[in-house]
Amino acid sequence: MSGVLYGIGLGPGDADLMTVKAARLISAATVVAYPALENGNSFARSIAADLIRTDAREIKISIPMKVARAPAQAAYDNGAAEIAKQLDAGLDVVVLCEGDPFFFGSFMYIYARLKDRFETEIIPGITAMTASAASLGLPLAARNEMLSVIPGPLPDADLHAKISAANSVAIMKVGRHLGRIRAVIDDLGLLKNAHYIERTSLPNEHKMLLADAPDPAPYFSMILITKEADPWL
Amino acid sequence: MSGVLYGIGLGPGDADLMTVKAARLISAATVVAYPALENGNSFARSIAADLIRTDAREIKISIPMKVARAPAQAAYDNGAAEIAKQLDAGLDVVVLCEGDPFFFGSFMYIYARLKDRFETEIIPGITAMTASAASLGLPLAARNEMLSVIPGPLPDADLHAKISAANSVAIMKVGRHLGRIRAVIDDLGLLKNAHYIERTSLPNEHKMLLADAPDPAPYFSMILITKEADPWL
Repeated sequence: MSGVLYGIGLGPGDADLMTVKAARLISAATVVAYPALENGNSFARSIAADLIRTDAREIKISIPMKVARAPAQAAYDNGAAEIAKQLDAGLDVVVLCEGDPFFFGSFMYIYARLKDRFETEIIPGITAMTASAASLGLPLAARNEMLSVIPGPLPDADLHAKISAANSVAIMKVGRHLGRIRAVIDDLGLLKNAHYIERTSLPNEHKMLLADAPDPAPYFSMILITKEADPWL
Repeated sequence: MSGVLYGIGLGPGDADLMTVKAARLISAATVVAYPALENGNSFARSIAADLIRTDAREIKISIPMKVARAPAQAAYDNGAAEIAKQLDAGLDVVVLCEGDPFFFGSFMYIYARLKDRFETEIIPGITAMTASAASLGLPLAARNEMLSVIPGPLPDADLHAKISAANSVAIMKVGRHLGRIRAVIDDLGLLKNAHYIERTSLPNEHKMLLADAPDPAPYFSMILITKEADPWL
Protein backbone atom coordinates (compact mmCIF):
# COMPACT_ATOMS: atom_id res chain seq x y z
CA MET A 1 0.00 0.00 0.00
CA SER A 2 1.42 3.37 -1.10
CA GLY A 3 1.86 6.37 1.17
CA VAL A 4 -0.12 9.62 0.90
CA LEU A 5 1.35 12.75 -0.71
CA TYR A 6 0.57 15.89 1.30
CA GLY A 7 1.01 19.34 -0.25
CA ILE A 8 1.20 21.70 2.71
CA GLY A 9 0.68 25.46 2.49
CA LEU A 10 2.87 27.18 5.09
CA GLY A 11 1.53 30.71 4.73
CA PRO A 12 3.60 33.83 4.08
CA GLY A 13 6.45 33.27 6.55
CA ASP A 14 5.37 33.71 10.18
CA ALA A 15 5.07 30.15 11.57
CA ASP A 16 2.06 31.35 13.58
CA LEU A 17 0.16 31.76 10.31
CA MET A 18 0.39 28.06 9.52
CA THR A 19 -2.90 26.21 9.94
CA VAL A 20 -3.44 23.89 12.87
CA LYS A 21 -3.65 21.02 10.37
CA ALA A 22 -0.37 21.91 8.65
CA ALA A 23 1.43 22.14 11.99
CA ARG A 24 0.09 18.76 13.08
CA LEU A 25 1.01 17.01 9.82
CA ILE A 26 4.53 18.44 9.80
CA SER A 27 5.11 17.52 13.45
CA ALA A 28 4.16 13.91 12.71
CA ALA A 29 5.98 13.55 9.40
CA THR A 30 8.76 11.01 8.91
CA VAL A 31 9.53 12.20 5.36
CA VAL A 32 9.59 15.93 4.56
CA ALA A 33 10.37 17.42 1.12
CA TYR A 34 10.86 21.09 0.19
CA PRO A 35 12.29 23.33 -2.52
CA ALA A 36 15.64 25.00 -1.87
CA LEU A 37 17.99 27.36 -3.65
CA GLU A 38 21.18 26.00 -5.12
CA ASN A 39 23.10 27.40 -2.13
CA GLY A 40 21.01 25.10 0.08
CA ASN A 41 18.80 27.73 1.69
CA SER A 42 15.12 26.92 1.85
CA PHE A 43 12.56 29.54 2.85
CA ALA A 44 9.90 26.82 3.13
CA ARG A 45 12.02 24.77 5.52
CA SER A 46 12.83 27.85 7.60
CA ILE A 47 9.11 28.50 8.23
CA ALA A 48 8.51 24.96 9.48
CA ALA A 49 11.92 24.38 11.09
CA ASP A 50 10.72 24.22 14.71
CA LEU A 51 8.20 21.49 13.86
CA ILE A 52 10.31 19.08 11.79
CA ARG A 53 11.28 15.96 13.72
CA THR A 54 15.00 15.50 14.20
CA ASP A 55 14.67 11.91 12.90
CA ALA A 56 12.69 12.90 9.78
CA ARG A 57 14.15 12.03 6.39
CA GLU A 58 14.49 15.28 4.39
CA ILE A 59 14.28 15.51 0.60
CA LYS A 60 15.71 18.77 -0.69
CA ILE A 61 14.63 19.79 -4.21
CA SER A 62 17.30 22.22 -5.43
CA ILE A 63 15.76 24.61 -7.95
CA PRO A 64 18.23 26.35 -10.30
CA MET A 65 17.38 30.06 -10.59
CA LYS A 66 17.74 30.25 -14.37
CA VAL A 67 15.44 31.71 -17.01
CA ALA A 68 15.64 28.52 -19.12
CA ARG A 69 13.01 25.99 -18.10
CA ALA A 70 14.85 22.73 -18.65
CA PRO A 71 17.06 22.87 -15.51
CA ALA A 72 14.07 23.51 -13.21
CA GLN A 73 12.06 20.80 -14.97
CA ALA A 74 14.89 18.34 -14.40
CA ALA A 75 15.05 19.36 -10.72
CA TYR A 76 11.32 18.71 -10.25
CA ASP A 77 11.62 15.42 -12.17
CA ASN A 78 14.35 14.28 -9.77
CA GLY A 79 12.50 15.55 -6.69
CA ALA A 80 9.29 13.80 -7.77
CA ALA A 81 11.19 10.56 -8.36
CA GLU A 82 12.73 10.68 -4.87
CA ILE A 83 9.33 11.40 -3.31
CA ALA A 84 7.74 8.57 -5.34
CA LYS A 85 10.31 6.14 -3.98
CA GLN A 86 9.17 6.92 -0.41
CA LEU A 87 5.48 6.75 -1.33
CA ASP A 88 6.02 3.41 -3.06
CA ALA A 89 7.65 2.16 0.13
CA GLY A 90 4.41 2.94 1.97
CA LEU A 91 5.58 6.13 3.67
CA ASP A 92 3.57 9.35 3.69
CA VAL A 93 5.47 12.38 2.35
CA VAL A 94 4.82 15.95 3.48
CA VAL A 95 5.85 18.54 0.87
CA LEU A 96 6.36 22.03 2.29
CA CYS A 97 5.23 24.99 0.19
CA GLU A 98 5.42 28.73 0.97
CA GLY A 99 2.02 30.48 0.84
CA ASP A 100 -0.71 28.33 -0.68
CA PRO A 101 0.14 25.25 -2.79
CA PHE A 102 -2.19 26.18 -5.67
CA PHE A 103 -1.77 29.99 -5.59
CA PHE A 104 1.57 30.50 -7.36
CA GLY A 105 2.98 27.71 -5.17
CA SER A 106 5.92 25.45 -5.99
CA PHE A 107 3.98 22.31 -5.00
CA MET A 108 2.06 22.42 -8.29
CA TYR A 109 5.08 21.05 -10.12
CA ILE A 110 5.33 18.02 -7.83
CA TYR A 111 1.56 17.60 -7.98
CA ALA A 112 1.54 17.54 -11.79
CA ARG A 113 4.11 14.75 -11.76
CA LEU A 114 2.59 12.51 -9.06
CA LYS A 115 -1.16 13.15 -8.74
CA ASP A 116 -2.18 10.35 -11.10
CA ARG A 117 -0.10 7.74 -9.29
CA PHE A 118 -0.65 8.50 -5.60
CA GLU A 119 -3.36 9.55 -3.19
CA THR A 120 -2.87 13.28 -2.63
CA GLU A 121 -4.17 15.80 -0.12
CA ILE A 122 -3.66 19.55 -0.38
CA ILE A 123 -3.69 21.69 2.78
CA PRO A 124 -4.42 25.29 1.79
CA GLY A 125 -2.25 28.07 3.21
CA ILE A 126 -2.58 31.77 3.98
CA THR A 127 -1.62 33.65 0.81
CA ALA A 128 0.85 36.53 0.86
CA MET A 129 -1.99 38.55 -0.71
CA THR A 130 -4.40 38.26 2.22
CA ALA A 131 -1.56 38.55 4.77
CA SER A 132 -0.39 41.75 3.04
CA ALA A 133 -3.89 43.23 3.04
CA ALA A 134 -4.16 42.42 6.77
CA SER A 135 -0.83 44.04 7.55
CA LEU A 136 -1.61 47.15 5.50
CA GLY A 137 -5.12 47.45 6.93
CA LEU A 138 -6.55 47.46 3.40
CA PRO A 139 -9.78 45.53 2.75
CA LEU A 140 -9.49 43.72 -0.61
CA ALA A 141 -13.06 43.14 -1.72
CA ALA A 142 -16.62 43.30 -0.39
CA ARG A 143 -20.11 42.95 -1.78
CA ASN A 144 -20.00 43.07 -5.60
CA GLU A 145 -16.40 44.15 -6.03
CA MET A 146 -13.99 42.36 -8.32
CA LEU A 147 -10.42 41.50 -7.37
CA SER A 148 -7.73 40.66 -9.92
CA VAL A 149 -4.42 38.96 -9.20
CA ILE A 150 -1.92 39.99 -11.84
CA PRO A 151 1.69 38.90 -12.41
CA GLY A 152 4.00 41.91 -12.66
CA PRO A 153 5.99 40.61 -15.67
CA LEU A 154 2.96 41.09 -18.01
CA PRO A 155 3.44 43.69 -20.77
CA ASP A 156 2.46 47.31 -20.00
CA ALA A 157 -0.68 47.23 -22.16
CA ASP A 158 -1.99 44.14 -20.34
CA LEU A 159 -1.22 45.64 -16.93
CA HIS A 160 -3.03 48.83 -17.94
CA ALA A 161 -6.16 47.02 -19.14
CA LYS A 162 -6.37 44.59 -16.24
CA ILE A 163 -5.77 47.19 -13.52
CA SER A 164 -8.49 49.42 -15.04
CA ALA A 165 -11.02 46.60 -15.13
CA ALA A 166 -10.92 45.58 -11.45
CA ASN A 167 -11.95 47.24 -8.17
CA SER A 168 -8.94 45.90 -6.31
CA VAL A 169 -5.69 44.54 -7.69
CA ALA A 170 -2.86 42.45 -6.23
CA ILE A 171 0.30 42.50 -8.34
CA MET A 172 2.63 39.54 -7.71
CA LYS A 173 6.24 38.94 -8.70
CA VAL A 174 7.09 42.64 -8.68
CA GLY A 175 10.90 42.46 -8.32
CA ARG A 176 12.77 44.14 -11.14
CA HIS A 177 9.49 45.18 -12.83
CA LEU A 178 8.63 47.70 -10.11
CA GLY A 179 9.56 50.88 -12.01
CA ARG A 180 7.61 49.85 -15.09
CA ILE A 181 4.53 48.78 -13.07
CA ARG A 182 4.62 52.02 -11.08
CA ALA A 183 4.63 54.06 -14.30
CA VAL A 184 1.51 52.25 -15.51
CA ILE A 185 -0.27 52.83 -12.18
CA ASP A 186 0.72 56.51 -12.20
CA ASP A 187 -0.58 56.84 -15.76
CA LEU A 188 -3.94 55.48 -14.55
CA GLY A 189 -4.05 58.10 -11.76
CA LEU A 190 -4.00 55.36 -9.11
CA LEU A 191 -0.66 56.02 -7.39
CA LYS A 192 -2.44 57.37 -4.30
CA ASN A 193 -4.34 54.06 -4.03
CA ALA A 194 -1.28 51.85 -4.39
CA HIS A 195 0.68 50.29 -1.52
CA TYR A 196 3.87 48.29 -1.57
CA ILE A 197 4.83 45.53 0.89
CA GLU A 198 7.78 43.15 1.08
CA ARG A 199 8.44 40.05 3.22
CA THR A 200 4.98 40.26 4.76
CA SER A 201 4.58 38.73 8.25
CA LEU A 202 8.36 38.35 8.71
CA PRO A 203 10.43 40.38 11.19
CA ASN A 204 11.96 42.34 8.28
CA GLU A 205 8.61 43.21 6.68
CA HIS A 206 8.53 46.66 5.07
CA LYS A 207 5.46 48.50 3.80
CA MET A 208 4.89 51.92 2.31
CA LEU A 209 3.07 53.84 -0.40
CA LEU A 210 4.13 52.52 -3.81
CA ALA A 211 5.38 56.03 -4.61
CA ASP A 212 8.13 55.51 -1.99
CA ALA A 213 9.03 51.90 -2.82
CA PRO A 214 12.55 50.75 -3.78
CA ASP A 215 13.30 49.92 -7.42
CA PRO A 216 14.12 47.13 -8.08
CA ALA A 217 12.12 45.39 -5.34
CA PRO A 218 13.07 42.09 -3.70
CA TYR A 219 11.45 38.88 -4.94
CA PHE A 220 9.02 38.55 -2.02
CA SER A 221 7.16 41.80 -2.66
CA MET A 222 3.68 42.78 -3.75
CA ILE A 223 1.64 45.82 -4.80
CA LEU A 224 -1.95 46.23 -3.64
CA ILE A 225 -4.30 48.72 -5.28
CA THR A 226 -7.67 49.40 -3.67
CA LYS A 227 -9.80 51.91 -5.51
CA GLU A 228 -12.86 52.42 -3.37
CA ALA A 229 -12.43 55.29 -0.96
CA ASP A 230 -15.16 54.21 1.43
CA PRO A 231 -17.13 51.28 0.09
CA TRP A 232 -17.94 49.75 3.42
CA LEU A 233 -21.45 49.21 4.64
CA MET B 1 -5.50 52.30 28.24
CA SER B 2 -7.85 50.88 25.58
CA GLY B 3 -7.99 47.23 24.56
CA VAL B 4 -6.92 45.87 21.18
CA LEU B 5 -9.43 44.96 18.48
CA TYR B 6 -8.58 41.65 16.77
CA GLY B 7 -10.20 40.69 13.46
CA ILE B 8 -9.73 36.95 13.20
CA GLY B 9 -10.04 34.96 9.98
CA LEU B 10 -11.41 31.49 10.80
CA GLY B 11 -10.99 29.92 7.38
CA PRO B 12 -13.71 28.13 5.38
CA GLY B 13 -15.29 26.01 8.15
CA ASP B 14 -13.04 23.13 9.24
CA ALA B 15 -11.59 24.25 12.61
CA ASP B 16 -8.33 22.54 11.60
CA LEU B 17 -7.90 25.20 8.90
CA MET B 18 -7.68 27.98 11.47
CA THR B 19 -4.20 29.41 11.89
CA VAL B 20 -2.17 28.62 15.00
CA LYS B 21 -2.35 32.32 15.86
CA ALA B 22 -6.14 32.50 15.50
CA ALA B 23 -6.59 29.42 17.68
CA ARG B 24 -4.33 30.87 20.38
CA LEU B 25 -6.03 34.29 20.42
CA ILE B 26 -9.52 32.77 20.59
CA SER B 27 -8.53 30.38 23.41
CA ALA B 28 -7.25 33.31 25.47
CA ALA B 29 -10.07 35.75 24.73
CA THR B 30 -12.29 37.12 27.46
CA VAL B 31 -14.52 39.02 25.01
CA VAL B 32 -15.59 37.38 21.72
CA ALA B 33 -17.84 39.00 19.10
CA TYR B 34 -19.33 37.44 15.96
CA PRO B 35 -22.06 37.91 13.36
CA ALA B 36 -25.18 35.77 13.64
CA LEU B 37 -28.42 35.28 11.77
CA GLU B 38 -31.62 36.63 13.25
CA ASN B 39 -32.52 33.10 14.40
CA GLY B 40 -29.38 33.17 16.55
CA ASN B 41 -27.27 30.75 14.51
CA SER B 42 -23.69 31.84 13.86
CA PHE B 43 -21.49 29.97 11.39
CA ALA B 44 -18.45 31.88 12.66
CA ARG B 45 -19.12 30.85 16.27
CA SER B 46 -19.68 27.24 15.25
CA ILE B 47 -16.18 27.07 13.67
CA ALA B 48 -14.50 28.35 16.84
CA ALA B 49 -16.89 26.78 19.36
CA ASP B 50 -14.43 24.31 20.89
CA LEU B 51 -11.94 27.09 21.66
CA ILE B 52 -14.17 29.74 23.24
CA ARG B 53 -13.76 29.96 27.01
CA THR B 54 -16.85 29.14 29.00
CA ASP B 55 -16.36 32.36 30.99
CA ALA B 56 -15.90 34.57 27.90
CA ARG B 57 -18.32 37.42 27.39
CA GLU B 58 -19.98 36.98 23.97
CA ILE B 59 -21.24 39.81 21.76
CA LYS B 60 -23.64 38.59 19.10
CA ILE B 61 -24.14 40.90 16.11
CA SER B 62 -27.50 39.90 14.59
CA ILE B 63 -27.46 40.69 10.88
CA PRO B 64 -30.90 40.99 9.24
CA MET B 65 -30.92 39.16 5.88
CA LYS B 66 -32.69 41.90 3.93
CA VAL B 67 -31.85 43.51 0.60
CA ALA B 68 -32.20 47.01 2.07
CA ARG B 69 -28.97 48.27 3.59
CA ALA B 70 -30.23 50.31 6.50
CA PRO B 71 -31.12 47.37 8.83
CA ALA B 72 -27.66 45.78 8.41
CA GLN B 73 -25.98 49.16 8.87
CA ALA B 74 -27.87 49.65 12.12
CA ALA B 75 -26.85 46.15 13.27
CA TYR B 76 -23.16 46.89 12.63
CA ASP B 77 -23.52 50.29 14.32
CA ASN B 78 -24.90 48.60 17.42
CA GLY B 79 -22.32 45.80 17.35
CA ALA B 80 -19.47 48.28 16.98
CA ALA B 81 -20.79 50.34 19.88
CA GLU B 82 -20.93 47.27 22.14
CA ILE B 83 -17.41 46.27 21.13
CA ALA B 84 -16.16 49.83 21.68
CA LYS B 85 -17.53 49.76 25.23
CA GLN B 86 -15.32 46.75 26.02
CA LEU B 87 -12.27 48.26 24.33
CA ASP B 88 -12.78 51.51 26.24
CA ALA B 89 -12.85 49.47 29.45
CA GLY B 90 -9.37 48.19 28.57
CA LEU B 91 -10.42 44.73 27.40
CA ASP B 92 -9.18 43.16 24.16
CA VAL B 93 -11.97 42.02 21.83
CA VAL B 94 -11.65 39.12 19.40
CA VAL B 95 -14.03 39.39 16.44
CA LEU B 96 -14.64 36.09 14.64
CA CYS B 97 -14.95 36.15 10.86
CA GLU B 98 -15.55 33.27 8.42
CA GLY B 99 -12.86 32.96 5.76
CA ASP B 100 -10.50 35.95 5.62
CA PRO B 101 -11.48 39.28 7.26
CA PHE B 102 -10.59 41.39 4.19
CA PHE B 103 -11.68 38.96 1.44
CA PHE B 104 -15.46 39.39 1.38
CA GLY B 105 -15.39 39.12 5.18
CA SER B 106 -17.94 40.54 7.60
CA PHE B 107 -15.23 42.03 9.82
CA MET B 108 -14.73 44.89 7.34
CA TYR B 109 -17.87 46.56 8.59
CA ILE B 110 -16.69 46.56 12.21
CA TYR B 111 -13.22 47.65 11.05
CA ALA B 112 -14.60 50.64 9.15
CA ARG B 113 -16.40 51.80 12.28
CA LEU B 114 -13.60 51.34 14.84
CA LYS B 115 -10.20 51.43 13.13
CA ASP B 116 -9.59 55.13 13.72
CA ARG B 117 -10.33 54.91 17.43
CA PHE B 118 -8.61 51.69 18.51
CA GLU B 119 -5.45 49.69 17.94
CA THR B 120 -6.40 46.93 15.52
CA GLU B 121 -4.76 43.71 14.37
CA ILE B 122 -6.05 41.56 11.51
CA ILE B 123 -5.27 37.83 11.45
CA PRO B 124 -5.64 36.58 7.87
CA GLY B 125 -7.61 33.37 7.25
CA ILE B 126 -7.74 30.63 4.65
CA THR B 127 -10.14 31.77 1.93
CA ALA B 128 -12.91 29.52 0.62
CA MET B 129 -11.29 30.08 -2.78
CA THR B 130 -7.96 28.40 -1.96
CA ALA B 131 -9.66 25.73 0.16
CA SER B 132 -11.97 24.93 -2.76
CA ALA B 133 -9.06 24.70 -5.21
CA ALA B 134 -7.29 22.35 -2.77
CA SER B 135 -10.34 20.14 -2.40
CA LEU B 136 -10.98 20.01 -6.15
CA GLY B 137 -7.31 19.39 -6.96
CA LEU B 138 -7.31 22.39 -9.29
CA PRO B 139 -4.25 24.67 -9.32
CA LEU B 140 -5.42 28.31 -9.52
CA ALA B 141 -2.46 30.21 -10.96
CA ALA B 142 1.23 29.74 -11.71
CA ARG B 143 3.95 31.70 -13.45
CA ASN B 144 2.43 34.55 -15.46
CA GLU B 145 -1.21 33.58 -15.17
CA MET B 146 -3.92 35.97 -14.08
CA LEU B 147 -6.65 35.06 -11.60
CA SER B 148 -9.88 37.03 -11.26
CA VAL B 149 -12.29 36.88 -8.34
CA ILE B 150 -15.75 37.84 -9.57
CA PRO B 151 -19.03 38.25 -7.67
CA GLY B 152 -21.80 36.20 -9.28
CA PRO B 153 -24.46 38.93 -9.08
CA LEU B 154 -22.67 41.03 -11.76
CA PRO B 155 -24.63 41.52 -15.02
CA ASP B 156 -24.14 38.93 -17.80
CA ALA B 157 -22.05 41.25 -20.00
CA ASP B 158 -19.60 41.94 -17.15
CA LEU B 159 -19.34 38.25 -16.29
CA HIS B 160 -18.66 37.46 -19.95
CA ALA B 161 -15.91 40.07 -20.33
CA LYS B 162 -14.20 39.31 -17.02
CA ILE B 163 -14.23 35.53 -17.43
CA SER B 164 -12.75 35.88 -20.94
CA ALA B 165 -9.93 38.14 -19.75
CA ALA B 166 -8.48 35.87 -17.03
CA ASN B 167 -6.65 32.53 -17.03
CA SER B 168 -8.45 31.32 -13.91
CA VAL B 169 -11.64 32.60 -12.37
CA ALA B 170 -13.29 32.19 -8.97
CA ILE B 171 -16.95 33.19 -8.90
CA MET B 172 -18.26 34.04 -5.43
CA LYS B 173 -21.82 34.49 -4.13
CA VAL B 174 -23.28 32.09 -6.68
CA GLY B 175 -26.57 31.20 -4.93
CA ARG B 176 -29.63 32.03 -7.00
CA HIS B 177 -27.47 33.32 -9.87
CA LEU B 178 -26.18 29.85 -10.76
CA GLY B 179 -28.30 29.24 -13.85
CA ARG B 180 -27.47 32.63 -15.36
CA ILE B 181 -23.73 32.28 -14.63
CA ARG B 182 -23.70 28.77 -16.09
CA ALA B 183 -25.29 30.03 -19.31
CA VAL B 184 -22.55 32.67 -19.69
CA ILE B 185 -19.81 30.07 -19.10
CA ASP B 186 -21.42 27.68 -21.58
CA ASP B 187 -21.61 30.49 -24.14
CA LEU B 188 -17.85 30.99 -23.72
CA GLY B 189 -17.22 27.29 -24.36
CA LEU B 190 -15.76 26.87 -20.85
CA LEU B 191 -18.28 24.50 -19.27
CA LYS B 192 -15.78 21.62 -19.39
CA ASN B 193 -13.32 23.77 -17.39
CA ALA B 194 -15.83 24.80 -14.71
CA HIS B 195 -16.25 23.13 -11.32
CA TYR B 196 -18.80 23.77 -8.60
CA ILE B 197 -18.24 23.34 -4.86
CA GLU B 198 -20.39 24.08 -1.83
CA ARG B 199 -19.59 24.14 1.92
CA THR B 200 -15.92 23.47 1.27
CA SER B 201 -13.98 21.76 4.08
CA LEU B 202 -17.19 20.92 6.01
CA PRO B 203 -18.55 17.37 6.47
CA ASN B 204 -21.37 18.16 4.02
CA GLU B 205 -19.09 19.52 1.29
CA HIS B 206 -20.28 18.70 -2.25
CA LYS B 207 -18.30 19.18 -5.45
CA MET B 208 -18.97 18.38 -9.09
CA LEU B 209 -18.70 19.68 -12.63
CA LEU B 210 -20.66 22.92 -12.94
CA ALA B 211 -22.75 21.19 -15.61
CA ASP B 212 -24.20 18.95 -12.87
CA ALA B 213 -24.63 21.59 -10.15
CA PRO B 214 -27.98 22.36 -8.45
CA ASP B 215 -29.85 25.54 -9.38
CA PRO B 216 -30.29 27.57 -7.26
CA ALA B 217 -27.14 26.88 -5.25
CA PRO B 218 -26.77 27.42 -1.49
CA TYR B 219 -25.15 30.64 -0.23
CA PHE B 220 -21.79 29.02 0.61
CA SER B 221 -20.95 27.90 -2.92
CA MET B 222 -18.37 28.82 -5.53
CA ILE B 223 -17.49 28.19 -9.17
CA LEU B 224 -13.87 27.72 -10.22
CA ILE B 225 -12.82 27.95 -13.87
CA THR B 226 -9.28 26.93 -14.80
CA LYS B 227 -8.49 27.25 -18.47
CA GLU B 228 -5.01 25.87 -18.89
CA ALA B 229 -5.06 22.17 -19.70
CA ASP B 230 -1.48 21.46 -18.72
CA PRO B 231 0.40 24.65 -17.95
CA TRP B 232 2.64 23.17 -15.32
CA LEU B 233 6.39 23.23 -15.53
